[in-house]
Amino acid sequence: MPKISNRGIVMPASPIRKLVPYAESAKQRGVKVYHLNIGQPDIKTPEVALNAIRTANLSVIEYSHSAGNESYRRKLAASYNAIGMDVDYSDILITTGGSEAFVFAFMSCLDPGDEVIIPEPFYANYNAFAVMAGIQVRTLVSTIEDGFALPPIEAFEKLITPRTRGVVICNPNNPTGYLYSAEEMQKLEALVKKHDLFLFSDEVYREFCYDGQAHISAMSLKDISQHVIMIDSVSKRYSECGVRIGAMVTKNKRVVEAALKFGQSRLSPPSFGQIAAEASLDTPMDYFKEVYDEYLARRNFLLEGLNKIPGVYSPMPKGAFYTVARLPVDDSEKFCQWILSDFSYQGQTVMMAPASGFYSQPGLGVNEVRIAYVLNRTDLANALVVLEKALEAYPGRTI
Amino acid sequence: MPKISNRGIVMPASPIRKLVPYAESAKQRGVKVYHLNIGQPDIKTPEVALNAIRTANLSVIEYSHSAGNESYRRKLAASYNAIGMDVDYSDILITTGGSEAFVFAFMSCLDPGDEVIIPEPFYANYNAFAVMAGIQVRTLVSTIEDGFALPPIEAFEKLITPRTRGVVICNPNNPTGYLYSAEEMQKLEALVKKHDLFLFSDEVYREFCYDGQAHISAMSLKDISQHVIMIDSVSKRYSECGVRIGAMVTKNKRVVEAALKFGQSRLSPPSFGQIAAEASLDTPMDYFKEVYDEYLARRNFLLEGLNKIPGVYSPMPKGAFYTVARLPVDDSEKFCQWILSDFSYQGQTVMMAPASGFYSQPGLGVNEVRIAYVLNRTDLANALVVLEKALEAYPGRTI
Ligand SMILES: Cc1ncc(COP(=O)(O)O)c(C=O)c1O
Ligand SMILES: Cc1ncc(COP(=O)(O)O)c(C=O)c1O
Repeated sequence: MPKISNRGIVMPASPIRKLVPYAESAKQRGVKVYHLNIGQPDIKTPEVALNAIRTANLSVIEYSHSAGNESYRRKLAASYNAIGMDVDYSDILITTGGSEAFVFAFMSCLDPGDEVIIPEPFYANYNAFAVMAGIQVRTLVSTIEDGFALPPIEAFEKLITPRTRGVVICNPNNPTGYLYSAEEMQKLEALVKKHDLFLFSDEVYREFCYDGQAHISAMSLKDISQHVIMIDSVSKRYSECGVRIGAMVTKNKRVVEAALKFGQSRLSPPSFGQIAAEASLDTPMDYFKEVYDEYLARRNFLLEGLNKIPGVYSPMPKGAFYTVARLPVDDSEKFCQWILSDFSYQGQTVMMAPASGFYSQPGLGVNEVRIAYVLNRTDLANALVVLEKALEAYPGRTI
Repeated sequence: MPKISNRGIVMPASPIRKLVPYAESAKQRGVKVYHLNIGQPDIKTPEVALNAIRTANLSVIEYSHSAGNESYRRKLAASYNAIGMDVDYSDILITTGGSEAFVFAFMSCLDPGDEVIIPEPFYANYNAFAVMAGIQVRTLVSTIEDGFALPPIEAFEKLITPRTRGVVICNPNNPTGYLYSAEEMQKLEALVKKHDLFLFSDEVYREFCYDGQAHISAMSLKDISQHVIMIDSVSKRYSECGVRIGAMVTKNKRVVEAALKFGQSRLSPPSFGQIAAEASLDTPMDYFKEVYDEYLARRNFLLEGLNKIPGVYSPMPKGAFYTVARLPVDDSEKFCQWILSDFSYQGQTVMMAPASGFYSQPGLGVNEVRIAYVLNRTDLANALVVLEKALEAYPGRTI
């Protein structure tokens, strides 16, 4: 029997994969599980998108242009222009989710053995994309004490080697909810320019910024327009994760051209997804207002509730729909398993993502969890009660 | 400005990419262009698939399981069983087209620097998937004189090095339309077993086999069930290229497990595509009969017409909907460009794919073209007339 590849072995599994059987068995015991572990919103997809699919009236579902339908790219560019971003339709490659945009961006910009620097904790699939591209991830820590702010630039400088070719940021951040300030973005701009790096900027949560703090897109950093690769996605913006449509956006024509070759090799992004995504650009403003108000209310509700639980601390996330909380436990992996396998309160329990899965350096995040506020407030209220009761009962409680 | 990657530079562009501007400008001059260059059928998508999309009635378009919806995998396994293949639903990973199945298969089975052997001419995107996976492609020639039959096993043996980890076949073949016989498949089985290789078997054209010759799936080679990775796709079977649904199928559990991690990193295959693909499994038999009869009639019509043109030769393809024809020209790349840029007959011309794009070794296929019979017979008849007249007028004609 032939051996599988080494990269197939080192390829990281999803951080919550180990918990899935425990969640399944809890459900089989009749326990209700609140899923605070995932980025799958419960928010409705805009009616315009669903309608566009229903009425598409195709007779042959053909391949589209490998860069995505031109009509969609043009309309998407216009929507970027409307929020002040200088993007031409030819700067856009429509991809199969933001996920594929990352793979194309890494493959087009970086060679095997090249290094990127990522502040941790970070979206765990960046590790997977790095394995696919054969690149090395170097990390530096943003801490819960600092509210997960950008680590000092000197810490980046220390990690730079002759193989360093890029920096990856996620803004607003998954898992921390942190939103980079204008000052932090300027610091990154100077760093990227000084060392001639690429800046891969994951902005899939752009619309989810709270407390009046503006989102500063990497596309607005004029000094490094040739260095910036923006990753975008319709998944969260319109709660249409399943359509699998994202985009790679850059003013660097050589990167667009290289990425298009990767795009041509897989022929085209999904046709129905593009129909939904293009139609979604006509989503009425009150949809966004409603969704925004809902997430804001959930965030405030969750954070107030979390910080009231004795021993629990979470900084206030300024964006996205996640927060990282510190719990009074010995090991959040154990706790997240225990709460599913050994605990329930009034027939309910919660599933959370141990934060260690979002860190690379061993030992980090051992008493932190990521909580997604993708459930309605009633469910969140119940989940908070379960969490409080569980922490009281957990044998590995530390304080 | 940071440099793009070396792989972004060496990544091959589509073989017909250079011709696209010439086709565009022919159209702008008002010339009708018959597209014999592509694998995009004009056949209608089954009504059951379109209906399933129209009536899907989702309110949130969620991520699916990373391996694809279980209901779809189970039904797909049953459809394989019905044609005598031993496939369990857990042997299947639903992918974003057969294209992604290749990337996952290569990434899971092979490491950078590993080698695969592929008889040429072959589907050009295998080169692209190889670049993505960092593997080397070694080729051996199947010739038009032999009707593109499997090259002798000794020729494979000669290419084997300590880094050889796999063989890639496409059956029936794109671009040649060749269909491997039971004897050829047994030879491959013995070779693969002897050298402990993977056999990547692209069977996306399985349903298109003519003249009563049976399709022998690599999945039926019992001695190497742990070695075989089958690549499948709904693109051509149901003329639904745009839904972007394929599958990687193998009895090798370690490969499935590794590939699933790649699948988890991109979250899920397209939701609407899965709905269409699952519904397509209920396509009535007369749809297939009609499509089959249509392709068969087109093939017979095309091949008869081609071989009547003085100086043109094409062996009879036994499967898929392509054929490779030898033309009496100095250089088919030049001819395919010239026929678009400098020629038209009664306001019409044709676009074909120069076969050199399907060979790796320089100098091969210089007087061959790939012709896809994805047009109706009236269009094919017109295209044949244009081709004949063009060959009469072409300044680089050889005989
Ligand atoms: C930070 C971040 N980036 C990218 C993605 C990829 O999303 P998609 O491929 O659905 O666009 C996600 C999904 O959860 C995410 O959280
Ligand atoms: C031989 C072969 N394999 C694989 C594919 C990939 O098709 P898809 O990604 O649409 O499933 C094609 C498409 O033309 C093909 O011709």
